[in-house]
Amino acid sequence: IRRELVVLHASMQIVVHKDGPRGNHFRRAGPRQRVYFEPDEVHACIVTCGGLCPGLNTVIREIVCGLSDMYGVTKILGIQGGYRGFYARNTIDLTPKSVNDIHKRGGTILGSSRGGHDTMKIVDSIQYRGINQVYVIGGDGSQRGAGVIFEEVRKRGLKVAVAGIPKTIDNDIPVIDKSFGFDSAVEEAQRAINAAHVEAGSADNGIGLVKLMGRYSGFIAHYATLASRDVDCCLIPESPFYLEGEGGLFKYIEKRLKENGHMVIVVAEGAGQKLIAENMKEMGQDASGNALLLDVGLWLSQKINEHFKKNKTTINLKYIDPTYMIRAIPSNASDNVYCTLLAHSVVHGAMAGYTGFTVGQVNGRHCYIPFYRITEKQNKVSITDRMWARLLSSTNQPSFLSKQDVDDAKVEDERTAKLLDGSPSNPKVEDKVASSNSNGVK
Amino acid sequence: IRRELVVLHASMQIVVHKDGPRGNHFRRAGPRQRVYFEPDEVHACIVTCGGLCPGLNTVIREIVCGLSDMYGVTKILGIQGGYRGFYARNTIDLTPKSVNDIHKRGGTILGSSRGGHDTMKIVDSIQYRGINQVYVIGGDGSQRGAGVIFEEVRKRGLKVAVAGIPKTIDNDIPVIDKSFGFDSAVEEAQRAINAAHVEAGSADNGIGLVKLMGRYSGFIAHYATLASRDVDCCLIPESPFYLEGEGGLFKYIEKRLKENGHMVIVVAEGAGQKLIAENMKEMGQDASGNALLLDVGLWLSQKINEHFKKNKTTINLKYIDPTYMIRAIPSNASDNVYCTLLAHSVVHGAMAGYTGFTVGQVNGRHCYIPFYRITEKQNKVSITDRMWARLLSSTNQPSFLSKQDVDDAKVEDERTAKLLDGSPSNPKVEDKVASSNSNGVK
Amino acid sequence: IRRELVVLHASMQIVVHKDGPRGNHFRRAGPRQRVYFEPDEVHACIVTCGGLCPGLNTVIREIVCGLSDMYGVTKILGIQGGYRGFYARNTIDLTPKSVNDIHKRGGTILGSSRGGHDTMKIVDSIQYRGINQVYVIGGDGSQRGAGVIFEEVRKRGLKVAVAGIPKTIDNDIPVIDKSFGFDSAVEEAQRAINAAHVEAGSADNGIGLVKLMGRYSGFIAHYATLASRDVDCCLIPESPFYLEGEGGLFKYIEKRLKENGHMVIVVAEGAGQKLIAENMKEMGQDASGNALLLDVGLWLSQKINEHFKKNKTTINLKYIDPTYMIRAIPSNASDNVYCTLLAHSVVHGAMAGYTGFTVGQVNGRHCYIPFYRITEKQNKVSITDRMWARLLSSTNQPSFLSKQDVDDAKVEDERTAKLLDGSPSNPKVEDKVASSNSNGVK
Amino acid sequence: IRRELVVLHASMQIVVHKDGPRGNHFRRAGPRQRVYFEPDEVHACIVTCGGLCPGLNTVIREIVCGLSDMYGVTKILGIQGGYRGFYARNTIDLTPKSVNDIHKRGGTILGSSRGGHDTMKIVDSIQYRGINQVYVIGGDGSQRGAGVIFEEVRKRGLKVAVAGIPKTIDNDIPVIDKSFGFDSAVEEAQRAINAAHVEAGSADNGIGLVKLMGRYSGFIAHYATLASRDVDCCLIPESPFYLEGEGGLFKYIEKRLKENGHMVIVVAEGAGQKLIAENMKEMGQDASGNALLLDVGLWLSQKINEHFKKNKTTINLKYIDPTYMIRAIPSNASDNVYCTLLAHSVVHGAMAGYTGFTVGQVNGRHCYIPFYRITEKQNKVSITDRMWARLLSSTNQPSFLSKQDVDDAKVEDERTAKLLDGSPSNPKVEDKVASSNSNGVK
Repeated sequence: IRRELVVLHASMQIVVHKDGPRGNHFRRAGPRQRVYFEPDEVHACIVTCGGLCPGLNTVIREIVCGLSDMYGVTKILGIQGGYRGFYARNTIDLTPKSVNDIHKRGGTILGSSRGGHDTMKIVDSIQYRGINQVYVIGGDGSQRGAGVIFEEVRKRGLKVAVAGIPKTIDNDIPVIDKSFGFDSAVEEAQRAINAAHVEAGSADNGIGLVKLMGRYSGFIAHYATLASRDVDCCLIPESPFYLEGEGGLFKYIEKRLKENGHMVIVVAEGAGQKLIAENMKEMGQDASGNALLLDVGLWLSQKINEHFKKNKTTINLKYIDPTYMIRAIPSNASDNVYCTLLAHSVVHGAMAGYTGFTVGQVNGRHCYIPFYRITEKQNKVSITDRMWARLLSSTNQPSFLSKQDVDDAKVEDERTAKLLDGSPSNPKVEDKVASSNSNGVK
Repeated sequence: IRRELVVLHASMQIVVHKDGPRGNHFRRAGPRQRVYFEPDEVHACIVTCGGLCPGLNTVIREIVCGLSDMYGVTKILGIQGGYRGFYARNTIDLTPKSVNDIHKRGGTILGSSRGGHDTMKIVDSIQYRGINQVYVIGGDGSQRGAGVIFEEVRKRGLKVAVAGIPKTIDNDIPVIDKSFGFDSAVEEAQRAINAAHVEAGSADNGIGLVKLMGRYSGFIAHYATLASRDVDCCLIPESPFYLEGEGGLFKYIEKRLKENGHMVIVVAEGAGQKLIAENMKEMGQDASGNALLLDVGLWLSQKINEHFKKNKTTINLKYIDPTYMIRAIPSNASDNVYCTLLAHSVVHGAMAGYTGFTVGQVNGRHCYIPFYRITEKQNKVSITDRMWARLLSSTNQPSFLSKQDVDDAKVEDERTAKLLDGSPSNPKVEDKVASSNSNGVK
Repeated sequence: IRRELVVLHASMQIVVHKDGPRGNHFRRAGPRQRVYFEPDEVHACIVTCGGLCPGLNTVIREIVCGLSDMYGVTKILGIQGGYRGFYARNTIDLTPKSVNDIHKRGGTILGSSRGGHDTMKIVDSIQYRGINQVYVIGGDGSQRGAGVIFEEVRKRGLKVAVAGIPKTIDNDIPVIDKSFGFDSAVEEAQRAINAAHVEAGSADNGIGLVKLMGRYSGFIAHYATLASRDVDCCLIPESPFYLEGEGGLFKYIEKRLKENGHMVIVVAEGAGQKLIAENMKEMGQDASGNALLLDVGLWLSQKINEHFKKNKTTINLKYIDPTYMIRAIPSNASDNVYCTLLAHSVVHGAMAGYTGFTVGQVNGRHCYIPFYRITEKQNKVSITDRMWARLLSSTNQPSFLSKQDVDDAKVEDERTAKLLDGSPSNPKVEDKVASSNSNGVK
Repeated sequence: IRRELVVLHASMQIVVHKDGPRGNHFRRAGPRQRVYFEPDEVHACIVTCGGLCPGLNTVIREIVCGLSDMYGVTKILGIQGGYRGFYARNTIDLTPKSVNDIHKRGGTILGSSRGGHDTMKIVDSIQYRGINQVYVIGGDGSQRGAGVIFEEVRKRGLKVAVAGIPKTIDNDIPVIDKSFGFDSAVEEAQRAINAAHVEAGSADNGIGLVKLMGRYSGFIAHYATLASRDVDCCLIPESPFYLEGEGGLFKYIEKRLKENGHMVIVVAEGAGQKLIAENMKEMGQDASGNALLLDVGLWLSQKINEHFKKNKTTINLKYIDPTYMIRAIPSNASDNVYCTLLAHSVVHGAMAGYTGFTVGQVNGRHCYIPFYRITEKQNKVSITDRMWARLLSSTNQPSFLSKQDVDDAKVEDERTAKLLDGSPSNPKVEDKVASSNSNGVK
């Protein structure tokens, strides 16, 4: 009844119908009729890589509970401290009991780190320990790393399933509807925005400035602004802005202070990087030597203060950087459900003998997605679509864009869309899943 | 440039392509090229009806701010105390300033009530006051009421747009992806489940019993259970259960207490109603005369206590009913975004001259939906689909179902699907929206 | 250098200067010059008894960490499930590592129960296990139980220190300034009062009714009312009230609804018990047979509804019972500090060779108090003092008191004061504590 | 029945029995038999000065409600934007209705500012507007300002009561038991410490560094550390520390990382100022020109990073500055009660004709205290008392003190005590208050 081992090698690559008449198709996630691994043969391991994100512990918990409750797997290893944990640190045994309460805590019980990806050492360790299921929870760098491990595993002919759960608090992973932890982050960001609003509103010419996560894409800033209704200006990497002159940030701040006496600005960490670099050069400063000033929040605080000092206007700027307080919270209810579904999907996939894939919700359905599809580009806020228009209309901030900018952005959006084979914003999901009642898993 | 008045009458019925090859199509929500109403002619009113739900104040705020900021409308009236407020109570003027902070408070600043729907008096009042946009935020009964008002308005030939925003904390409105406030309710329910878990875990044979909202559909109980990971049994209206014998609730409780020493049960308020009625009859009690016992939470508490008393086992059952504490919270960030989009959609629709419609997200897109489509049936948890299977596998509770029950449920699901013209779970959304940058609204 | 064993027996009774010129003196808590127990001889045990209260886990944690970090004690046993755990259940070893995070969780990791106090079996178990320090965290019943154990231990000539940490969420333990968990409970009660306020304010003639803990004393209701500023009426056991006629509750409700359209009532669980009993008798009902109606919240809901039904006034009463949701929360920061000080005090006392005592803050200083002093009477809200007057002036509720009632209450207050030897509300604290830097403990 | 006007002048100075046999006596706060001001003659004003602190809005609310509900005063003016609001900004009328919900919001509805204290202009404005009660909510600088206003008012012979409510989130005001908002700040600080703990615990050699408020005294850092149980080192202004060598901070960090893999450091903003200044001088840097580096948090982060870089040890330091997020929260239940009592005390005092005083709880009783007594010195953490010893024993951090330091600190503590006339830490409170039932106020 068991699939042939050879099937593993052949079919472990998730099939994607390219250029089909209705776009991309990913294989729908879920339990399968046939299970590739015998539960008592499974030796799984879990590793968390990169920065913290709400929900890491829930994903760990649900991979463990999923393997154990749904399939009866008993050997599950936690790799400590990220990729380098495979060869440089201790491991811990994970059981449903040991992970029972971890979803109520922030962070990751396994520890995490950036880098440390030494493919040979890692695969040696996998081989040496007899591990045959590798679950990698991490951002696009880590998923790329998982892809490399998958290739090396194939090359060595090991019967090891390598699967990923994409993690990015910034929501900048493409293809999938949203990344886990994003909802919790937006929720927690409200707290900082509220504080900025209170501080600004209690001072004369009060300005509350909040820096939120988002190095390359401004989703958290965008949604936190939409949710809060207290923000007067939201600056993100996708929408360049400028400070001086008509239509610039300073004019807008002056206008809002005049109208309302105070204002709140939200800035994503990656916003205005080009502007900062240019500005540094003008000032004869070498940005690379002064990390503090490269922090867009501190830089912007300084620029705004200088501007109003020059204009002999007293302002009260309060700068809040809640980054670590947001990253470290436990996931909220909505993310807990999402993490559970992701974890169960990835377990079903690996148990069925798939490898080289990651999981995610695409247009509302959970799917298996090949590694390369989620690492080849980044998800970005489209400044020409309706969500961003809604934000602009809710904050009344200037668009900072010339007509040319808008046209350019549209062209870029379309070009990217084509690159992703058809209609990437609307990939289809194959529906070849065994009914959940008839799959024979316990 | 203005559309002819006659257009209003003809096109105000949202067009739905019935039985098209790819299912239902609803008109996509969003700003339109042409605006039917001149902003300075608009006299809008807002009314909230029925029980509380997180997000009511956000929807009120965003209708007011949407009309004001996006279209420059200045005359917006709040009808106080639900439908009867049209003829029996005072009204208040709503301005962006007066609603500025209300989204941070629970409840509704307009007050609400059930019933009081006297169509003639209401339409008389609309006519008398010169109101030409009516926004009704309420559950399915209230949306039906809005439909009746819409019909009477047409009959009288009034140029009044009647629009609804469906409200149900239970998420039991069909067609739409989810109702506003649901996410916040599931989040807040965690608090009660946590308390039940702590109480149960600190006692010998501790049982924590939490009643959650859901008269006809158990979505809150379902998702709160999935999110919490602390629940051992979830009982909902859609899945009948029984107490005695093999596969019954008592046996399962005994098993869990033996294994684990304590357990948590979540019960939706509408679960087991048939069982209670039968049980009452057996006991010679008239249920109608004893509302306290019809409360499934109190009834179940009593039954469980009696059972274990009979078996000479000491248990410690703690019953928690957090209903009003959940209903009264402010909406969370995710619901705030959703409420904003709903409110802006409905404003764009009414300003464009549509009437007799409600708004909602369908398969991820915001649409206009005719009243009758959301009131003709109720959204229910499908106990044959994968989400419920996930819950069963996560709680390990018995399914309480015979093979026959499952088959029946499947047939019913399919029948309903057909009734809703094609594939109701997957209606399509027309894409005839003006680009948000070119619609000429301010 | 070690005290003689005999010292243990003689001096283990806390010395209290009775009838001194300046009132009672308790021995001040703190580390002592001499330590009676050698750390490596100590075999401590901890037991939690009675209902849940925020801070139980913090006290457990800090007894363990205090014994371990300050004295180097390594053998600490957790007795599971209250007093009966001594003879009927398993025990667990407690280490600083195993209790490291427990203060962030509600409830008690040891489990708890009422009753089960079989003195002989308990002392047999203490003797059999070689335990020589017994820490009892529990209410007045449990402290009385600890006193009985202490007597039996003396009778048997065992060298065992028996010490208590008084626990009562109701703050009804006399002598001490306040009990741990009270602050957290008052904080959490705000959530229920807020919900009641939102529900009431969103309905026509809305009445929010919140039942809070307090069987014999109404401190939680009192302070929660003062903190909230949203409550129109606070009913506590110490201040009898009546429903009908001038100055009665119904008239006051009518007045508030007329003035304000809605109101919030807070009722302590022990309020109005005499009234309910009388009312039952009148109705020919036997209260003992109907526990549901003895719940003052449900009873009051019913009475208010009946009254207004009779008067043909439609009201909307929403009843909230947050009891278990309050009891189960983790302690807040202020209680965490207090629990830590209590735990360290009790550890210092036992290590110094005191026995038969409990700890508490008296007039701002931490002291050792003989068991009998905190169990001989209950702390009650004085309805003649200024705090209650503040509440009355803040709610504007009727006092429900005749002149005679006030005089009676004053006489009673004075009589009680005398009974407690001098000025019980102002006992003095001896100051014979070794400086904390010179006590030689590690 | 009214006191003579002359009484106002004579007795408005709060009498303090200096050098009495039992220390200082302050007049106990509370309602008085005689009321100096006729309610309908009262024209009160309220001003908030300095930085934000939880509870400002509660104090404002309760002064307004106290004056209105207890005395029937109707003319209450809010001065906007701090002291300069008297002459440079608008004022707003305050009514019980307009302040009804403000205690649930952080900040101050009146706005605040530093400086702007132009005595002549302010008293001109008071005189011109006919104000006869001035309530100043502010820190020690503002209370000193209120004292100056009080002197000028006397000089001009105006019948104006000037009263203060001391505000300092740092709890650094002497004489009083604690300042309002302190409890809420300690509570909210837990959130940042938790985040630091999660971040540190999820990284290899993770160090979480949290800066808390406290320019001259470290109470918030001290109590937040005691409450959290997650902090390994707490640095405050009162206890100098050093980085290098035996007993220094770096050695301790190395030790904790070795033992535990991660650690959390809490630093008060005023800690180590002398060390930073010296260090800057050594580096040839002019501290005054580089405010960023004067921030102890950023400075310490840099120093720690440099140290471990030099030692070739990879650490992960995460720095959190939650200052504005703490200041901006609404007050918790305990502070709400305290703010209410303070506000009612100050209202009773002013109505009784006292002037030139501030209010506070001293040894558990509410008193009137002359301005100069709370501004002449600062309250500081005593590093020789038992609370600090408790902290040291709970964190196990080095004391950073030589024997000489301890002796010096003790001498200083005693010297200060003497300066404050007798036993300042234990001033007595006169008990000359009319019973709250017989004061004739409504």
